[in-house]
Amino acid sequence: MSGQLRVAVVGATGVVGTQMLRTLVERGFPAHEVVPFASERSAGRKVFYGGEEVEVSMLSDDAIAGFDVAIFSAGATVSREWAPKFGAAGAIVVDNSSQWRMHDDIPLVVPEVNPEAMDAVADPGHSRIVANPNCSTMQMVVVLKPLFDAVGIERLVIATYQSVSGTGKSAIDALMAESKAVVEGQDPPAPTSYPHQIAFNVLAQAGSFKDGDDYTDEERKLINETRKILSAPEIAITATCARVPVIVGHSEAVNIQTRDPLSPEQATELLRSAPGVTVQDDPAAGVYPQALEAAGEDDVFVGRIRRDDSIENGLNLWIVGDNLLKGAALNAVQIAESLVARGLVGERTAA
Amino acid sequence: MSGQLRVAVVGATGVVGTQMLRTLVERGFPAHEVVPFASERSAGRKVFYGGEEVEVSMLSDDAIAGFDVAIFSAGATVSREWAPKFGAAGAIVVDNSSQWRMHDDIPLVVPEVNPEAMDAVADPGHSRIVANPNCSTMQMVVVLKPLFDAVGIERLVIATYQSVSGTGKSAIDALMAESKAVVEGQDPPAPTSYPHQIAFNVLAQAGSFKDGDDYTDEERKLINETRKILSAPEIAITATCARVPVIVGHSEAVNIQTRDPLSPEQATELLRSAPGVTVQDDPAAGVYPQALEAAGEDDVFVGRIRRDDSIENGLNLWIVGDNLLKGAALNAVQIAESLVARGLVGERTAA
Repeated sequence: MSGQLRVAVVGATGVVGTQMLRTLVERGFPAHEVVPFASERSAGRKVFYGGEEVEVSMLSDDAIAGFDVAIFSAGATVSREWAPKFGAAGAIVVDNSSQWRMHDDIPLVVPEVNPEAMDAVADPGHSRIVANPNCSTMQMVVVLKPLFDAVGIERLVIATYQSVSGTGKSAIDALMAESKAVVEGQDPPAPTSYPHQIAFNVLAQAGSFKDGDDYTDEERKLINETRKILSAPEIAITATCARVPVIVGHSEAVNIQTRDPLSPEQATELLRSAPGVTVQDDPAAGVYPQALEAAGEDDVFVGRIRRDDSIENGLNLWIVGDNLLKGAALNAVQIAESLVARGLVGERTAA
Repeated sequence: MSGQLRVAVVGATGVVGTQMLRTLVERGFPAHEVVPFASERSAGRKVFYGGEEVEVSMLSDDAIAGFDVAIFSAGATVSREWAPKFGAAGAIVVDNSSQWRMHDDIPLVVPEVNPEAMDAVADPGHSRIVANPNCSTMQMVVVLKPLFDAVGIERLVIATYQSVSGTGKSAIDALMAESKAVVEGQDPPAPTSYPHQIAFNVLAQAGSFKDGDDYTDEERKLINETRKILSAPEIAITATCARVPVIVGHSEAVNIQTRDPLSPEQATELLRSAPGVTVQDDPAAGVYPQALEAAGEDDVFVGRIRRDDSIENGLNLWIVGDNLLKGAALNAVQIAESLVARGLVGERTAA
């Protein structure tokens, strides 16, 4: 392996962790060693990194020393305990869980949108944690950013069509098992990953309902994280996050009221030159973003760019991204790359 | 069979026509004879009516005489030609196509919402056609009506999650064939009913793009028909209509700005007593409307009733209905029942 850096991938056996390992290789991240960590449940398991099988390590105070970068996709509970420990042991942590995203002093970063936010990790006493946003937020903000910069955004009304892979491997297995039963005319197995069958169904619930809130935590993430990433707490946002029987790729119907006027043609022009964004917009010819086509792609796709004449300065967009790539693993690795490019990792200095 | 009326069902071999025959029997419509009509393609085919096999008839000037009611679900082209002929021959026509819905003098009726509109068929010289609204509109307006009456509606932002059965039998077959191939690890067959694979995908296109419009005709129907049924051309409406891999049942994320304030609790109370509506709203316990559960049910289901605090007087709802029942066949039969109840059929008088 080429490169100077020693990298930990925490949660390396999960759907996103597996993709992180693949993405590090594919993008030629300058690592000389990558150590996969997983929970005790996975003890003894091996994962692939660059064609080699590597046995997963268990988290311990000894095992986490000596890393430059630690990329986490192990859930909020693991991140709460171990991300600060990795930071204190000298690594910069890129955390894909929801644990740190809304903390005031933790940068929440999409490199195409707000790379400068990550510079905070160099502040004395900083926890050295950078948060990776939620999947449905991430793909949306790369599209919103050029529009926001050009004309401002007053309000967003969002409806999502989210794939099951965001929930994890077990949800993919459940969707396939349920689908198989239905096409074979059998009774589907009892739901495991969701409260109800997801095959051939739509669930008006992506995420969970916490503390009596009538919005899911996924809906709150979409609202709160978008404001934080765009540094625009004043944007009015509402969201309905739904789960659909799709394996990979989140789709989003996004209704925008901009502050100043912006024609669909102007929006399209801005989006054609936006980094990480591909415009697919010739709907009469069947050209619009689709989950199936976005799966496996790095870019976020936008189409159905059209005037909403029900309101002044209204626009409608259809945004689709691979929730495992730009929505998770790719963005985390891009953050790690930006940390290197900005000189924020490479000189290991314990906090 | 009991009853006085002679009824034609035109398009009796389609998904909706089949359901119309079933619904007429289940609801005990007062027919002494029901004659199924179908296209020449279906010549010689038999359909079930009340447990008996009946051979379909072909449309001809002779065959259409002597009916009290003709219920059409045969597409706009057939309706354009034959609905006026049935009307001229003495029947009142309930038409499920888009052909007549937006004609100024044709009532567009949801019996729970605007039954009085159908009285126009008694006007001298009227074409005697009543239009059945589009599926996605119909289920939405039964929910909107009590809110509209109570506090007015300023604006609607709608995103739909529509099942394939609205497209017809061939689309159901395509979804199942594609799904079967995917779960078996085979290449799915080339798409037939849609421009792209629908299994494990979402298409940002329900309906088609006509005359250079960047909204689908389905989106225009949702906008225009809602205004007509509520007699409220002033309501601002925008919509994104998407197709999802669901067999039966359309889901809708509906964002409402009401004219006067209405709390979620007040909205829930209004909806609990609304005809044809069932509230399912305990989301933390997994209780919200679902396509799979709504399929086969007459009522429209509403849940996720919550404040949208991104705007003054904002509400979010999740609305689900069986697009073949309330969204098509049931509403058509309910219109026919209302025509009887209002004394508009029963005395056959050629126009």
